[in-house]
Amino acid sequence: MGGVTTAAKEPKQDRSRATRQRLLAAAVACLAEHGWAGSTVSVVAERAGVSRGAAQHHFPTREDLFTAAVEYVAEERSQALRALPGQDRAAVVAALVDLYTGPLFRAALHLWVAASDEEQLRPRVTELEARVGRETHRIAVELLGADESGPGVRETVQGLLDMARGLGLANLLTDDTARRERVVAQWAALLDQALG
Amino acid sequence: MGGVTTAAKEPKQDRSRATRQRLLAAAVACLAEHGWAGSTVSVVAERAGVSRGAAQHHFPTREDLFTAAVEYVAEERSQALRALPGQDRAAVVAALVDLYTGPLFRAALHLWVAASDEEQLRPRVTELEARVGRETHRIAVELLGADESGPGVRETVQGLLDMARGLGLANLLTDDTARRERVVAQWAALLDQALG
Repeated sequence: MGGVTTAAKEPKQDRSRATRQRLLAAAVACLAEHGWAGSTVSVVAERAGVSRGAAQHHFPTREDLFTAAVEYVAEERSQALRALPGQDRAAVVAALVDLYTGPLFRAALHLWVAASDEEQLRPRVTELEARVGRETHRIAVELLGADESGPGVRETVQGLLDMARGLGLANLLTDDTARRERVVAQWAALLDQALG
Repeated sequence: MGGVTTAAKEPKQDRSRATRQRLLAAAVACLAEHGWAGSTVSVVAERAGVSRGAAQHHFPTREDLFTAAVEYVAEERSQALRALPGQDRAAVVAALVDLYTGPLFRAALHLWVAASDEEQLRPRVTELEARVGRETHRIAVELLGADESGPGVRETVQGLLDMARGLGLANLLTDDTARRERVVAQWAALLDQALG
């Protein structure tokens, strides 16, 4: 009996997790394409092929869905980054900057800007941004082999991530790839010198 | 008679210019506070104490008003920056970063993000961003005393401005001043070394 219950439970849990992940992926894509104003639980449920009721079972509010979505994809990206084989610093800098130029950054940007106007969203997104930011910083320090006990090292890495965020913004309306690659190559060299 | 006509004309032109400037300032404040969705010609006219008809005489469309507003304030800021007395590079870097942390940047950010979703706004804002970006780069090169004929110098300055933009984004939801000052001090030192 116990065996049967477990067997029946697991596929159900798997299905539930699969539904949740489909909703999260659809939410990020929706935010990136249509912005906060065009992103509702209903729109995302339809995009994910999930009933509105099932979507609301997983995410009772719009804020729940979209903050969870940005966090989920940010975590996936962090894991991918951490799994990178050992590389030289230029490649690490390029990979870090890449975090800020895709659909995830576009989605997060829409969420940040909406949160700056909406009191309901603001504390959730502020907390999310701080958590994701700390995690990205930790990964950057590790991949760059930076020794944060040295003077200015912490701020050097922080500035790099700020630059990456600014490069993401510069890529919002136009394809900034060619210019970005030159900037990244130059600052990767400066950074390599600074980190010793 | 000619003298009378000119005298009558000039105050009228002055009044018109003053009205225009009040509308532009109100538009930037409105965008920074309420975002694109909450920013219409009517709301700005009321805020500026100008009739809706007069506002539409100056700016026939919403796109006209808000792109003109961001450009106007960007130009005012550029002029103020250019008028700075000779300073050391750390002070110049701090002044450049300051461009990206006030209400102008918030207003511009709302406009950029809205433009990424709205086809009507996108070409105008893309063109505006390119123009303002080139001008800011020119001023930065001048104030930093950077020789762009040297290898990598152009990209070094560009990366600094990208970092400044990223710092503006980091300041959107929380007051990031303390962290920002440390990052700016460190990157100013790296820049000073790189520019020689």
